[in-house]
Amino acid sequence: MSLQDIENSIRNVPNFPKAGIQFKDITTAIKQPQILKEIIEKIADHYRSKKIDYVVGIEARGFIFGAILAYALGCGFVPVRKKGKLPADVLTQEYSLEYGTDKVEIHKDALNKGDKILITDDLLATGGTTEAAVELVKKTGADIIGFAFVIELDDLNGRKALEKTAEVFSLIHY
Amino acid sequence: MSLQDIENSIRNVPNFPKAGIQFKDITTAIKQPQILKEIIEKIADHYRSKKIDYVVGIEARGFIFGAILAYALGCGFVPVRKKGKLPADVLTQEYSLEYGTDKVEIHKDALNKGDKILITDDLLATGGTTEAAVELVKKTGADIIGFAFVIELDDLNGRKALEKTAEVFSLIHY
Repeated sequence: MSLQDIENSIRNVPNFPKAGIQFKDITTAIKQPQILKEIIEKIADHYRSKKIDYVVGIEARGFIFGAILAYALGCGFVPVRKKGKLPADVLTQEYSLEYGTDKVEIHKDALNKGDKILITDDLLATGGTTEAAVELVKKTGADIIGFAFVIELDDLNGRKALEKTAEVFSLIHY
Repeated sequence: MSLQDIENSIRNVPNFPKAGIQFKDITTAIKQPQILKEIIEKIADHYRSKKIDYVVGIEARGFIFGAILAYALGCGFVPVRKKGKLPADVLTQEYSLEYGTDKVEIHKDALNKGDKILITDDLLATGGTTEAAVELVKKTGADIIGFAFVIELDDLNGRKALEKTAEVFSLIHY
């Protein structure tokens, strides 16, 4: 199975969430067992030698890939969630949206100094949410070893800010 | 590793999301690789002989367990999401909350008649969201083979309505 097969399994949905946007729909990819397996194996193979302690997945589609990656790599999974969803003591980080701001959180005791972290989400666009996750992880003292995305939208250049922290690995580029 | 080890890894957070509720926090379980592996293997072992085609996971914590289960069982993953999150044509189902209602959706073309489905979430309480997922899956013509939960709150008796449709399997009971 090739990257082209994975790319072919991703559906383009025009005008979602608003006019002029071509949404990359990964639900048509992950319903195919062979495609799902290949996505995970390609990312896991890339990071297996790095001895990751925790995969951090960003709500909500990042939970899908992040959780399987953690399982495949034999490490723990730690969620970064929208504000108000995590029950225990949290660290909070604000980030900018096109209009206004939003907040993400991580449990204060989820990570420790020196833990080796892989941050993952389904898609890298401008990288705003991922940068907020970076700030949260840094506040815990853990070390970010890399980023993994299934899809990267190259023109939006989200990679630039993330590469200051660690390696960015994306399977499919548009 | 025993069910008691899994139970011990789940954190009780008092008064979340509101006074008087003891929230069962699974983040302390899934950050431990051996616990995460054991949870998935116990559920996968239970359903492996049933030749499941798709695991349906309910947003958001259901994505964590559902996605790994799909990977472990070698089947596809199909998300049930909050209203407005899925990009293509959807089926919508309303369900009751303590105050008011909410809606969940599935892609219209996600499942087909005769597909064998396992519905999963982290926790079974009253079962309202899961029953909404049942209605969505039934509208596609697919067959629900079973339900899987990491935690079941026995006193809330969510099992009763679900058992009319298929077997309910929960690892930990409170």
